[in-house]
Amino acid sequence: MEARPTDRRSLAVILAAGEGTRMKSRRPKVLHEVAGRSMLGHVLAAAAALDDIAVVIGAGKEDVAAEARRQRPDAKIFVQEKQLGTAHAVLAAREAFAGADDIVVLFADTPLVRAETIAALRAALAEGAAVAVLAFEAADPHGYGRILCDAEGRPAAIREEKDASAAERACRLCNAGLMAISCAKALALLDGIDAANAQKEYYLTDIVARAAAAGLGTRLVVAAEEEVLGVNDRVQLARAESVAQERLRRAAMLGGATLIAPQTVFLSYDTKIGRDVTIEPGVVIGPGVEIADGAVIHAYSHLEGALVGERATVGPYGRLRPGAKLAAQAKVGNFVEIKGAEIGEGAKVNHLTYIGDASVGAHSNIGAGVITCNYDGFFKYRTIIGDNAFIGSNSALVAPVTIGDGAYIGSGSVVTKDVSADALAVARGRQMEKTGWAESFRRVQKAKKSGA
Amino acid sequence: MEARPTDRRSLAVILAAGEGTRMKSRRPKVLHEVAGRSMLGHVLAAAAALDDIAVVIGAGKEDVAAEARRQRPDAKIFVQEKQLGTAHAVLAAREAFAGADDIVVLFADTPLVRAETIAALRAALAEGAAVAVLAFEAADPHGYGRILCDAEGRPAAIREEKDASAAERACRLCNAGLMAISCAKALALLDGIDAANAQKEYYLTDIVARAAAAGLGTRLVVAAEEEVLGVNDRVQLARAESVAQERLRRAAMLGGATLIAPQTVFLSYDTKIGRDVTIEPGVVIGPGVEIADGAVIHAYSHLEGALVGERATVGPYGRLRPGAKLAAQAKVGNFVEIKGAEIGEGAKVNHLTYIGDASVGAHSNIGAGVITCNYDGFFKYRTIIGDNAFIGSNSALVAPVTIGDGAYIGSGSVVTKDVSADALAVARGRQMEKTGWAESFRRVQKAKKSGA
Amino acid sequence: MEARPTDRRSLAVILAAGEGTRMKSRRPKVLHEVAGRSMLGHVLAAAAALDDIAVVIGAGKEDVAAEARRQRPDAKIFVQEKQLGTAHAVLAAREAFAGADDIVVLFADTPLVRAETIAALRAALAEGAAVAVLAFEAADPHGYGRILCDAEGRPAAIREEKDASAAERACRLCNAGLMAISCAKALALLDGIDAANAQKEYYLTDIVARAAAAGLGTRLVVAAEEEVLGVNDRVQLARAESVAQERLRRAAMLGGATLIAPQTVFLSYDTKIGRDVTIEPGVVIGPGVEIADGAVIHAYSHLEGALVGERATVGPYGRLRPGAKLAAQAKVGNFVEIKGAEIGEGAKVNHLTYIGDASVGAHSNIGAGVITCNYDGFFKYRTIIGDNAFIGSNSALVAPVTIGDGAYIGSGSVVTKDVSADALAVARGRQMEKTGWAESFRRVQKAKKSGA
Repeated sequence: MEARPTDRRSLAVILAAGEGTRMKSRRPKVLHEVAGRSMLGHVLAAAAALDDIAVVIGAGKEDVAAEARRQRPDAKIFVQEKQLGTAHAVLAAREAFAGADDIVVLFADTPLVRAETIAALRAALAEGAAVAVLAFEAADPHGYGRILCDAEGRPAAIREEKDASAAERACRLCNAGLMAISCAKALALLDGIDAANAQKEYYLTDIVARAAAAGLGTRLVVAAEEEVLGVNDRVQLARAESVAQERLRRAAMLGGATLIAPQTVFLSYDTKIGRDVTIEPGVVIGPGVEIADGAVIHAYSHLEGALVGERATVGPYGRLRPGAKLAAQAKVGNFVEIKGAEIGEGAKVNHLTYIGDASVGAHSNIGAGVITCNYDGFFKYRTIIGDNAFIGSNSALVAPVTIGDGAYIGSGSVVTKDVSADALAVARGRQMEKTGWAESFRRVQKAKKSGA
Repeated sequence: MEARPTDRRSLAVILAAGEGTRMKSRRPKVLHEVAGRSMLGHVLAAAAALDDIAVVIGAGKEDVAAEARRQRPDAKIFVQEKQLGTAHAVLAAREAFAGADDIVVLFADTPLVRAETIAALRAALAEGAAVAVLAFEAADPHGYGRILCDAEGRPAAIREEKDASAAERACRLCNAGLMAISCAKALALLDGIDAANAQKEYYLTDIVARAAAAGLGTRLVVAAEEEVLGVNDRVQLARAESVAQERLRRAAMLGGATLIAPQTVFLSYDTKIGRDVTIEPGVVIGPGVEIADGAVIHAYSHLEGALVGERATVGPYGRLRPGAKLAAQAKVGNFVEIKGAEIGEGAKVNHLTYIGDASVGAHSNIGAGVITCNYDGFFKYRTIIGDNAFIGSNSALVAPVTIGDGAYIGSGSVVTKDVSADALAVARGRQMEKTGWAESFRRVQKAKKSGA
Repeated sequence: MEARPTDRRSLAVILAAGEGTRMKSRRPKVLHEVAGRSMLGHVLAAAAALDDIAVVIGAGKEDVAAEARRQRPDAKIFVQEKQLGTAHAVLAAREAFAGADDIVVLFADTPLVRAETIAALRAALAEGAAVAVLAFEAADPHGYGRILCDAEGRPAAIREEKDASAAERACRLCNAGLMAISCAKALALLDGIDAANAQKEYYLTDIVARAAAAGLGTRLVVAAEEEVLGVNDRVQLARAESVAQERLRRAAMLGGATLIAPQTVFLSYDTKIGRDVTIEPGVVIGPGVEIADGAVIHAYSHLEGALVGERATVGPYGRLRPGAKLAAQAKVGNFVEIKGAEIGEGAKVNHLTYIGDASVGAHSNIGAGVITCNYDGFFKYRTIIGDNAFIGSNSALVAPVTIGDGAYIGSGSVVTKDVSADALAVARGRQMEKTGWAESFRRVQKAKKSGA
């Protein structure tokens, strides 16, 4: 009887040293993001169940190492000084091999691989294989290495397209690159790979033919093509984003959220969405957002680092920035920005307002065009608004300032001093009128205009 | 000679009792919306030409009954206490059968069925069939019941996938569920359906084999697969929305409107759009909107319950809420919200403004950042602005208030009293200056900051 | 040896006289826009390398002539009084034929044709052909004229679908309409085309059979179907827009810009985008926009006629109108409109602001809700803000007005007079408080409400 995969100590070797020239970017390729997380971060998450992680980076790519450690502090970082092929890259992590039963080779630019697929590769080793290879059936196999199988359907070799015969090219089973290797059975083969090819590179794929030739067991695991999409330019990055978004949207909908036009809603890898949430077309949700049951996010809203309480509503054109926390049934309306602020239960901030570094008490009403003046060019200050307060439209609240429970601010006021509970505060100019002024003004201006 | 369909009294029996568990919603499934109207509402609209309507609902689903009556006050409501199959559900409406020549069975969770298709089912009965069955050719028939036909192409039976032979499974003609039954010829068959199957349910589909066996005429009507899409979860709901939107967009474009990016424009079932209207990308139009010839709706605008006059322009980021009425050539610009307000001919409300519960006269100009203060926390009040008025930027108009024709409000005013026609009103503080203050302020703050 | 194409003088004859009835528009069909430029403009751009341009317009279509001359001042305009077929239309431009070696016939309603394809048609003539025909392989050839080829694969005739045999209909190689004609070899054939057909029209396509019959060389050039998409209604216009957008997005991405959701980003024919630019979902870019390296355009921004400097950021919901110029690292935030204004290096305009006809100096900070009051109903005036200035939130700057370097404007001020460098200016009302007022107000209003 075979051991269960979890009994075997597994090491993920994540190759992250590629140059990524076609990205035309100052940023290392594997730090480009998909659904709000770096591609490397996605692969680390897919490999979260593995016991150890080794990340192979290019020389001088300290930001890649930092990103790896940020998500997986125990990751061991190895530098591949020269790019001499995938086998060479894996061997750059040799120091990490000690103690591992299995090595799973992953690519930081193949960000959509799922934990289930990695588990299937590990299971293949647990069931006795020396090498397990991830394949996909390509809609258009042109340009991919083909997996040649023996009569029992076990992979016997991987043939690059340019070396393939016409019959071999007809095969649509292609090499995804990902692989699992049993240390006990196949580590020696890895060491034996040579660079006897036109490119003078050490190809990891050679291990398959070597294992087959040595009579060691090889196994195929097949994934959907979109799961093993490799990202080499920004067109492919957009395609990966699209696949990631499809997964997130589908999960949200099956979980009980209505996405009226899912293809126009953009979620992040960590978005949490409750039941009976409605998300209208054109909503962007960045990292760190949680939306509770029954909330409604109207069209063209933009949320990041924000909590939306039960049956709260946002937008259209609502912007929640980091630290925005809406209590149950709070309402944030159109052209409203909330940053670093709590909006109390049932409170309303309906139109054209900026609430920053503030707290708004339960059932308070913030009029249209209200601004919290939280910044003096050097420091930021807080505005505290109590429960059941009413802030008249077009008022400016100059922080630090406190508006008491039940206080009432007259429209158009500039409030610079604290206001007591249940008081009225007004701070605005007195209205004066000049009869007939507008008529004569128009006469003068029209004359100027016709004169011009 | 056969009677024309309109000579026969038709009853629609709309099945709306399904639980909809996979929606994961507190709301009954058939009340979920597509293009701004409940699924039940869509089916009622498709059946509008039928003489009588019976809706079969689940126990305690009063909101479903209310929605049916809202759209079709003469609808008869029947409660199916237990869900014992589709035939059982139809028979729950037996009291409504009297007087009907034909019964058309519709499903409230199949919201895209068209009136033309229902007419085709009725026509089949008028031409002599006892039972007419709606079929569709499935791109992937997996999971659907197959329609087995006799040598003349008439439906002979409907076979569930699990009971089908390999040859039967190869058939791509699938059962849509919708059906028309001649009362005179086939009502007895309906009563005869038993629950002699694994699920112990009464299946309406059994009527086909019974009618064929009895030598009664059966007929096939074929619809496009998308028309008979059934909605059981929110992924399918999104798909139905997408099909409904495609229909609406296509009709708008063929009618003479330019939709630059139709897949980003969301219309409602009742949207009216004139000729030479341009709609930019990213526009959401809720129920009750009418857009006259030559109007332009710029990107990221959001309209509901609003009228847009000829050659008027809205947005980008224009929000028209219920009761917004724009006269010809009126202009509503960016970050502007209009609610319950008429904007006169050629009037301009260009930027960052809230006009609520108001009327703005012809050719008036509302400056940037103007707010109508229409609410005191308890009541709403109206603002009346005459023709040719000029409201200076960043002014607040505290309702109830009237600004006369041709009046001029100085920028930054808080207007609390009526302003006479052709007068100037100013209501703001006086400007004072402290020389050098900013320089010393910066010195102090910088010191604090470096001290911190 | 054959002449290179550039050695031969080429005339483009652009047919722009079609009625376009199915557009249901007051605007001539060929003036409808794709990616921010008229369809005619696109064809003129594709033909830019040709020596001479003739545009054939319908009677009274002066706006079409004007659009042609706007882009190509040397274009010769010809009026086709009656629409008697494509050959008749080409011959309407006969006066322009003198001096031309080659005539390339283009269609103003086929806006996606590429310069490379036109060059290929010209090259075919340079290599000896008398007539070169543009073909495409139709996914669904239904309704298109088929190109019948001889044994050597040279076009022998074009057969309209209704005249085609079943075998000919099976051919998927269809006629795109575009053609190149050697004047020396085939001009006589053009004159010889008659109207001996059911429609009594002169068909340009007849020249192919005539050239083949005369033993003159004919050649086929094949384009992708999407390149030769003809626009006859607004559904097809939307399809052309979609293809044009795909090209623009792809070029931007391969050039080093990240488009997170390319299908929601709309570019113009002349958009310039640098490296490491990020464009979030839902961005509309009109004509005349240039975005420098490292800039970020957040979601739901709308730009036209604007420059965005290096590492500057815009949005979400940033609107740049013509004349907006953002220096390096400038920041324009949410619900902000910039028009005819320069924003200096590192300056910030973060929220709910309108800056029109202004200049903002380097490193100045414009608070939330600030409005430049640039218009008095007749004239526009400029606001000048120096470097390192601080404009407090919710202030109105009444132009013409100048705020000196390092000046500080108190929140909620209405500034009507110039402010000296390093000074503080405040212009607002004084705050007063009425203790307990709000409590009694609520008591009264509640009573009214319950009384109502």
